[in-house]
Amino acid sequence: MAIELVGLDADDTLWHNESYFRLTHQRFNDLLGPYADPATLDRRLVETMERNVRTYGYGAKTATLSMIETASEVAGQDLHAVIGEILAAGRELMAHPVELLPGVREAVEQLAERYRLVLVTKGDLFHQELKLAGSGLGDHFSGVEIVSTKTADTYRKVFRRYGVAPEATVMAGNSVRSDVLPALEAGAFAAHIPYELVWEHEAADLPENHPRLAQLNSISELPRWLEEHAAR
Amino acid sequence: MAIELVGLDADDTLWHNESYFRLTHQRFNDLLGPYADPATLDRRLVETMERNVRTYGYGAKTATLSMIETASEVAGQDLHAVIGEILAAGRELMAHPVELLPGVREAVEQLAERYRLVLVTKGDLFHQELKLAGSGLGDHFSGVEIVSTKTADTYRKVFRRYGVAPEATVMAGNSVRSDVLPALEAGAFAAHIPYELVWEHEAADLPENHPRLAQLNSISELPRWLEEHAAR
Repeated sequence: MAIELVGLDADDTLWHNESYFRLTHQRFNDLLGPYADPATLDRRLVETMERNVRTYGYGAKTATLSMIETASEVAGQDLHAVIGEILAAGRELMAHPVELLPGVREAVEQLAERYRLVLVTKGDLFHQELKLAGSGLGDHFSGVEIVSTKTADTYRKVFRRYGVAPEATVMAGNSVRSDVLPALEAGAFAAHIPYELVWEHEAADLPENHPRLAQLNSISELPRWLEEHAAR
Repeated sequence: MAIELVGLDADDTLWHNESYFRLTHQRFNDLLGPYADPATLDRRLVETMERNVRTYGYGAKTATLSMIETASEVAGQDLHAVIGEILAAGRELMAHPVELLPGVREAVEQLAERYRLVLVTKGDLFHQELKLAGSGLGDHFSGVEIVSTKTADTYRKVFRRYGVAPEATVMAGNSVRSDVLPALEAGAFAAHIPYELVWEHEAADLPENHPRLAQLNSISELPRWLEEHAAR
């Protein structure tokens, strides 16, 4: 069966995301440096973030609320001295310019000539729409699917929604756990495109010798891999 | 043309929402009472919220961040004394039990027997999915569309996605501006179901004598109105 639909992850597949979170985290560590050592700060922020993700979901707003909560525990009565900087860091996390990863523009243009493209991304609808608009790539996509989790069932629903059988679909992204494994489980092809920074939550092992899996070095390799390996 | 698809708004159409925001706002006013008079607090919180909605989008997380920002301006060095209570109020805004409005369960069950139902709601994906799960109504819906704005174009896209002509669709909700006017503009039927509290952002006049508009007192009247007025 020929590939008809290409699902693409957004954050850290099309554009930088994790690097901005890391910069923000570093800025937070510097700001709170007078009140706690970096290891303690890291541990408390990660713990608070993990708890808050369950209440609030993922995203920049949750990260900002987690920084505020951690700062209030660590800085005590000095919270007022750091709050302005934390709120500013949170706003910048929402509004940073969209920086496409190398080769993305060309690959997306090339893919859009032969396949229908759909963006499949977790997280915050408002923020992802901002980023897609800022990327200048919006016109190449037939649809945008913002989902709260990425399971095999999530992908099955997306494929059904576009009227395409799983075997005629490939999902490409940087996360083994969210993009690759559940797409394979749903019966689709999957392409793993590693990002330089891997978020701890997303780390997982790639299956060996899976007939529907592409391990690519860059999204630039995806159009050709689809030509050569995914049956047409 | 017979009605095939019924779009339903969520917050303040199916379940209480605005009332929780108002309770939270009151709790904030009580907490910050020692630092500013209620009118000043109201004005500053509304200004901050309006500014933050442009950065962060709508929702409980934006409301929480806005309360923190306002408190930091008003309470100054006492921010530390109130932050815990504000964070708790924000978490409760996310996690409050879903309280269906009168007649909703019966109306949704009745509508689901004859039409496909789709939830069309603005705002935060994570929060809306939480609320739909908590409502126990999820199984009656063919789909959930979380959108960042509700314009005529938004509704056209939704109708196209479900393969239904606008004339075979009705959108029902409490907001004249978000649910009624853009749905009529897209060529659909619209049913206005007023909520006891109207958010200032959503206030707008209803058109007079529009052939595709139902002005209902309650969602309980929707199934019958569709039978009698929307051509079958």
